[in-house]
Amino acid sequence: MTDESRFYHNAAGLPVAETRFRVRYHETDAMGVVHHAAYITWFEEGRSDFTRVIGYPYSQMAADGMDLAVVELAARYHRPARYDDEVVVTTCLQELRSRDLTFTYEVRRAADDVLLVSGSSRHISVDHSGRAIRILEAVRQRLAGRG
Amino acid sequence: MTDESRFYHNAAGLPVAETRFRVRYHETDAMGVVHHAAYITWFEEGRSDFTRVIGYPYSQMAADGMDLAVVELAARYHRPARYDDEVVVTTCLQELRSRDLTFTYEVRRAADDVLLVSGSSRHISVDHSGRAIRILEAVRQRLAGRG
Amino acid sequence: MTDESRFYHNAAGLPVAETRFRVRYHETDAMGVVHHAAYITWFEEGRSDFTRVIGYPYSQMAADGMDLAVVELAARYHRPARYDDEVVVTTCLQELRSRDLTFTYEVRRAADDVLLVSGSSRHISVDHSGRAIRILEAVRQRLAGRG
Amino acid sequence: MTDESRFYHNAAGLPVAETRFRVRYHETDAMGVVHHAAYITWFEEGRSDFTRVIGYPYSQMAADGMDLAVVELAARYHRPARYDDEVVVTTCLQELRSRDLTFTYEVRRAADDVLLVSGSSRHISVDHSGRAIRILEAVRQRLAGRG
Repeated sequence: MTDESRFYHNAAGLPVAETRFRVRYHETDAMGVVHHAAYITWFEEGRSDFTRVIGYPYSQMAADGMDLAVVELAARYHRPARYDDEVVVTTCLQELRSRDLTFTYEVRRAADDVLLVSGSSRHISVDHSGRAIRILEAVRQRLAGRG
Repeated sequence: MTDESRFYHNAAGLPVAETRFRVRYHETDAMGVVHHAAYITWFEEGRSDFTRVIGYPYSQMAADGMDLAVVELAARYHRPARYDDEVVVTTCLQELRSRDLTFTYEVRRAADDVLLVSGSSRHISVDHSGRAIRILEAVRQRLAGRG
Repeated sequence: MTDESRFYHNAAGLPVAETRFRVRYHETDAMGVVHHAAYITWFEEGRSDFTRVIGYPYSQMAADGMDLAVVELAARYHRPARYDDEVVVTTCLQELRSRDLTFTYEVRRAADDVLLVSGSSRHISVDHSGRAIRILEAVRQRLAGRG
Repeated sequence: MTDESRFYHNAAGLPVAETRFRVRYHETDAMGVVHHAAYITWFEEGRSDFTRVIGYPYSQMAADGMDLAVVELAARYHRPARYDDEVVVTTCLQELRSRDLTFTYEVRRAADDVLLVSGSSRHISVDHSGRAIRILEAVRQRLAGRG
């Protein structure tokens, strides 16, 4: 979360966080562009920031006894990002159910708003021993932006 | 490619490479298990090894003027890998077309053959300027295991 | 470089950049804290930001035909950073010579200014083929903050 | 540890482990060579392998209530490694004291034995809460290769 992080509800009424940062050099590879696995860590930073802007950061969730484990991941690569590009990650809570939730992501180049990568991740709620549990009601309220 | 790398055709007649290595400590995260993005780099190591065992490593492909750019990626996480686990990545060339190809992956724990993560990646053939090109015929022959 | 990046000369008259960001989850390891190699990428982000705030980003340097190759690296670890911590990297251009330069770094936790990690890196100037060259005079002026 | 891992005492009588693996693609950066932070994870893999070949892996050490925390790190970069290079990491237990120990490392290209990177790391013994403790006597015996 930086001063530039934003939170709003999109046209479909879904909660969305926008996170902005610059490509780091170590995220590039020998093809001269950002390595495809780096975007996966950007998705994670997007949803981290989502939890921060709604006032319920992952660290609080963990303290409350709940983690989110990734069970599915998908990405489509449209254009490459390059070192020093400023990018914007848009993270949308697409679906929130009793035991799992799905985020969708768009990574755009800040300079011209071109879509670079899109994707999604599905997560289940687990306790600290890794056992699947229902999403805590307090967490559900917060995630839905009704906290 | 290590002495333990294997290459064969599976029951469906598709070429498969098996790669074996140990989980590195830096691949873990604060949940005590391997971070979900690390498996994406294992998929890449799996297909790197695939190209090595067929005698046509990526480095040769690049020297011949062709790169493979990732355009789609998917993963399902079944069980976590942990530090020091020995894992086996099975990489299968699922589909080979004129301009793109698809690999599928299974990551299993060597000790008990339990499936940890499965996934796929689709790649298009590009020249060094990033423009989409047809897969070179020589490359196609090699990839199909008919080199 | 964010709105919070700062540039100034320290008590010894040396140019310093301050960069602020949050710890990403994938930077942690199974000990529950930030992995020691992650700080090395933060040092890099610190000097990247240094070049941005002086108006001569690495990307421009590369376009002008010069890269900086790391030849020595040192770090001391005082306290661990944790997920979600906001940290400040202070990057100082300690020495600037005809063919090499040295940056020093301090990583502090933003909340209480506690020193987490300190270190240094020495770099030589190379052309795109990796051959050592003199630092371009224009680059020297800029790096020294006299651009 | 692979079938190719070796353990011996060097000319100075110090215990040494040799670990062999190939450069992964994601370890490269836009300069076309291995990123300097990747070698730091190779040092770690070297000492992980050291603990495996002496029959006392980190995972066992952790189960026995002791971790090794990095307190100092140094590296010198002589020549770059490239994608697909086979490398050999030589890890030597240079010094073993009551509360801390130091490993030194050499990374060489397997094809021609050229030295690529050398370095060292100093570690203190900590319990799971991160408090400094004496190195357990059983661990000392094992690390010294007298287990």
